[in-house]
Amino acid sequence: MNEFERIEKFFKPLTRGHRGALGLRDDAALLDVPEGCEMVVSADMSVEGVHFRKEDELENIACKALRVNLSDMAAKGAKPLGYFLSLCWPGRLRESDMKAFAGGLAHDGDAFDISLLGGDLTAGEQLTIAVTILGIIAKDSMPLRSNAEAGDDIYVSGTIGDGALGLLLLEGRQSALSTQERRYLHQRYFLPTPRLELGRALVGNIGASIDVSDGLLGDLEHICKASGVGARIFEARIPLSRAAGTMLAEDDSLLERILTGGDDYEILFCAAPAQRAAIDKIGSELRTPLARIGEIAKNSDIALIRPDGNETIPATKSFRHF
Amino acid sequence: MNEFERIEKFFKPLTRGHRGALGLRDDAALLDVPEGCEMVVSADMSVEGVHFRKEDELENIACKALRVNLSDMAAKGAKPLGYFLSLCWPGRLRESDMKAFAGGLAHDGDAFDISLLGGDLTAGEQLTIAVTILGIIAKDSMPLRSNAEAGDDIYVSGTIGDGALGLLLLEGRQSALSTQERRYLHQRYFLPTPRLELGRALVGNIGASIDVSDGLLGDLEHICKASGVGARIFEARIPLSRAAGTMLAEDDSLLERILTGGDDYEILFCAAPAQRAAIDKIGSELRTPLARIGEIAKNSDIALIRPDGNETIPATKSFRHF
Repeated sequence: MNEFERIEKFFKPLTRGHRGALGLRDDAALLDVPEGCEMVVSADMSVEGVHFRKEDELENIACKALRVNLSDMAAKGAKPLGYFLSLCWPGRLRESDMKAFAGGLAHDGDAFDISLLGGDLTAGEQLTIAVTILGIIAKDSMPLRSNAEAGDDIYVSGTIGDGALGLLLLEGRQSALSTQERRYLHQRYFLPTPRLELGRALVGNIGASIDVSDGLLGDLEHICKASGVGARIFEARIPLSRAAGTMLAEDDSLLERILTGGDDYEILFCAAPAQRAAIDKIGSELRTPLARIGEIAKNSDIALIRPDGNETIPATKSFRHF
Repeated sequence: MNEFERIEKFFKPLTRGHRGALGLRDDAALLDVPEGCEMVVSADMSVEGVHFRKEDELENIACKALRVNLSDMAAKGAKPLGYFLSLCWPGRLRESDMKAFAGGLAHDGDAFDISLLGGDLTAGEQLTIAVTILGIIAKDSMPLRSNAEAGDDIYVSGTIGDGALGLLLLEGRQSALSTQERRYLHQRYFLPTPRLELGRALVGNIGASIDVSDGLLGDLEHICKASGVGARIFEARIPLSRAAGTMLAEDDSLLERILTGGDDYEILFCAAPAQRAAIDKIGSELRTPLARIGEIAKNSDIALIRPDGNETIPATKSFRHF
């Protein structure tokens, strides 16, 4: 099959009938933005050997490549509309692999109500997936990274470190975890859940917001730099899953991995203390744990308060590509 | 430098002060769509060893990766607003290479009045450039591929085959061309010029439209398939540069390469015969040669009429990735 036949067979169904996709048969897609809304756009690339391992399931690789983009929409409180997929597909992969890859996207397209709108399919050596995602939000309501203010509470959703520890286990790390706990951490690494509902509910109640992809401390640093502030984080308040807690109890040096490993795709956000009741209510209604882990400070340091009250300034904050 | 420092140094200037880019320091960009307009979005990926050669100049590679996307905007008559760049950058390349790459984008950003709005920078083995471009157009005015009708004239802008022949020369093909002609063909391969002004001027006067990237016949086939029609193209009317004419005179088997090699980034469009005067006027005003090369037919064949009047149905129509 040539690329046009592949697009017709595997990718056209992913448009889910969205008119603006023009059946993936035109040079461009058309998108309408409702009055009073702005378009929110983000792009993330996933590369073989960097963001996933060659031996990973193609269905999971596809889903994760889409979900990391959905997670950006979640952090910005946007409603995702559609995505563009540029795919560099190695010749060694088969048609059945492409079917599995597209199958993952089909599943998530339905799960998150999002359509493929266009893109590009090309041959190459290294499987590379570039997604650009488009969403909408009411004008002037997007929570920017630069909106943090001294005195704000710092919250994070869900639990932190699961994805990074899941990858560590996949890489052969030993641990006394049960099969179920092990599977849970693997799953958190392979298939993060973008916090779309939470992100939209938080709009209007919060200041700065970001999704945790590079690492909790690194992403907090992004907020602090953009806002010209610092932060204090209480180690004892970092929300951990039971599995992550077990591994940390086995080896307390894993704390750094938990705080800087990334791949969490939770939402890290700041809000004035006056918003505590409203935020607790949102967490309860959505049954999403929200942990108040620290506070924004006037200086520019990111300090970690140990359980004994001592303060440290962690040097490593996130995964670095270069 | 880590990726954030590289983004700050090399890529932030490419936003050219566009507010919606948020200084490339947020998870997403914000875009306003003026009332009465729709957003036109397209994505194209350029991969080392597929779309360009490892030894090509990084400045040219960057410009071309952007220009092939601008060419899609041109074919759709859209005004480009901004672009997202997801870049997989090999470790073997240096900081000076990244500077050259960003320098190319800076030049074209000014030349085509377009801002970088966001993206992603990641390490990897194979230089891979994924661009998603966003533009606007008045509602319901975009010339679709599916708008061709039997009886329409078929036009193409500029000259055809230069890029494909330029690549052939770079690959070592012998020819008696002058240095100047040779340089002209190389340049047409490395730095196509998106026909943005022409595309916008044609809106309202034409039916179907596409940019010639896969090959003249292949892209015509895209229009024909989307519109459920066929076409007749007159070989003698295919517009050739002097350099391409010289090479064709040396070896008439190059005709296939000219018609199917792609990399032209001219606009191929269809229009009712009643529009001839209007289209000629647009061509004159913009000093852009527009050749009327054939006509849309009721059947589904793409026929090539030879200078002697004989008809052939070319089997090969374009470059194929798979």
